[in-house]
Amino acid sequence: MKIIHTIEEMSNFSKKTHLKAQTIGFVPTMGALHEGHLSLIRQARKENDIVVVSIFVNPIQFGQKEDYRRYPRNLKLDAQACRKEDVDIIFCPDREEMYPANYKTYVTVRDLSDVLCGQFRPGHFQGVATVVAKLFHIINPDIAYFGQKDAQQSIIIKKMVEDLKFAVKIKIIPTIREKDGLALSSRNAYLHKGQRRDALVLYQALTLAKNLIRQGKIDSSEVIGKMKELINKKKSANIQYVAIVDPKDLLPVDKIRDKVLVALSVWIGKTRLIDNIIIDRKT
Amino acid sequence: MKIIHTIEEMSNFSKKTHLKAQTIGFVPTMGALHEGHLSLIRQARKENDIVVVSIFVNPIQFGQKEDYRRYPRNLKLDAQACRKEDVDIIFCPDREEMYPANYKTYVTVRDLSDVLCGQFRPGHFQGVATVVAKLFHIINPDIAYFGQKDAQQSIIIKKMVEDLKFAVKIKIIPTIREKDGLALSSRNAYLHKGQRRDALVLYQALTLAKNLIRQGKIDSSEVIGKMKELINKKKSANIQYVAIVDPKDLLPVDKIRDKVLVALSVWIGKTRLIDNIIIDRKT
Repeated sequence: MKIIHTIEEMSNFSKKTHLKAQTIGFVPTMGALHEGHLSLIRQARKENDIVVVSIFVNPIQFGQKEDYRRYPRNLKLDAQACRKEDVDIIFCPDREEMYPANYKTYVTVRDLSDVLCGQFRPGHFQGVATVVAKLFHIINPDIAYFGQKDAQQSIIIKKMVEDLKFAVKIKIIPTIREKDGLALSSRNAYLHKGQRRDALVLYQALTLAKNLIRQGKIDSSEVIGKMKELINKKKSANIQYVAIVDPKDLLPVDKIRDKVLVALSVWIGKTRLIDNIIIDRKT
Repeated sequence: MKIIHTIEEMSNFSKKTHLKAQTIGFVPTMGALHEGHLSLIRQARKENDIVVVSIFVNPIQFGQKEDYRRYPRNLKLDAQACRKEDVDIIFCPDREEMYPANYKTYVTVRDLSDVLCGQFRPGHFQGVATVVAKLFHIINPDIAYFGQKDAQQSIIIKKMVEDLKFAVKIKIIPTIREKDGLALSSRNAYLHKGQRRDALVLYQALTLAKNLIRQGKIDSSEVIGKMKELINKKKSANIQYVAIVDPKDLLPVDKIRDKVLVALSVWIGKTRLIDNIIIDRKT
């Protein structure tokens, strides 16, 4: 396994790989790798000749008051995990390599970026789309892997690729959960013991929604009401949003008829957690 | 020569070309080809195995009140001209092929897009950057050719390519002029006879600036003042802007010390014309 720090070396490696007619699977991450990331990496390993994992805590997707500085960074542990999964390349440029002074270009996916998490994190998805576009150009992957955990991000990246005709296939990999149901997230590391217990309520609320819909409830506001009631029972929980939307355009669904994305964001103490499930009434 | 209308066919052609280790030179145009375009095409022909010319009147770079509808379109004449220059492919997708319903993704080059023409054409350079990014992904050229006539556009595209690390080399080709100095433009076709005479004042003003600077004038406001005076003598001329800027960041230069871009936009009747020259005091 090789660790590459510069754009030039990375893109030269990719060019050589394609000249040998080998395929590249790419897993973009911000490091602090957990089983969720590893499931993406394993999928990439199965399907490609070469696996590239990027580790870059992308400053432009963090708001002024967000956790850019304290976001967990541990390249040594991440490299160990990647080596174990037989990754070929870790690409970890520094901030100045990706955004030199005088950097000016941004990619925006309209509408999809302004709802759900986007309402509360202005500029976040522009930051995500921009860094992913740039990484795609540098690494030129055949397939790139994203987690269903970040549902809105996945939908935005798929839309960007479709609209701008990037030559890459996007695969979305199911969310990995702890045994008790908590979705894996690098930010779970911020949780104290009592908060860890309360954090379970995100998954419990999603499970409640699934059961209500399976039982025949079709009124989104009723389902959302019951989810909120459940979450509000937890002392450390503070709801940012609970939404039932169309997974294609992320617009609110009033009556649940077929496939919906149930998504929520909840502050547990000072840690903002997100989770989601897709529910298809017809299956 | 082949005329391709769909993105799929175009990108398949490009993939096959690269598999044969052939290079692609790309000239993006809005059609209504004149000697300016042909000089780009000839340069592309010299330097590449395959030459692709795109002809697409890009709706998203026109303002509501601009000339999208009346912009000259004549694929038959354009195809004749391309055939004569030994072009391999004309790519001319229709509007729905490039921007299907529900299209959402835009590329913005900040700061550079808001000055000079950008002040008067909000969204214009976002439209340009977006369509060029998309065409680059579809055609995957080794080299793309742009005209110095659209100086701001060239600078924005170069910045986009540098920032997002597109794998394409950008070449800027000198402006082609009529014998009397008028820069070639598809919009010159809009000019009536008297206007055609008055339109010459753009080049005359630029020539005046060059002479003044060569004579040792270093005060931009003085040079701009004399240029405006000259232009205002023409009855049908209405100045939109006259500017002396740094060609790197397009910011106004107060004292002319080395390389400057002298750029102007003038309405001749109902036709908006632009022109520019780069002047280096040191050479």
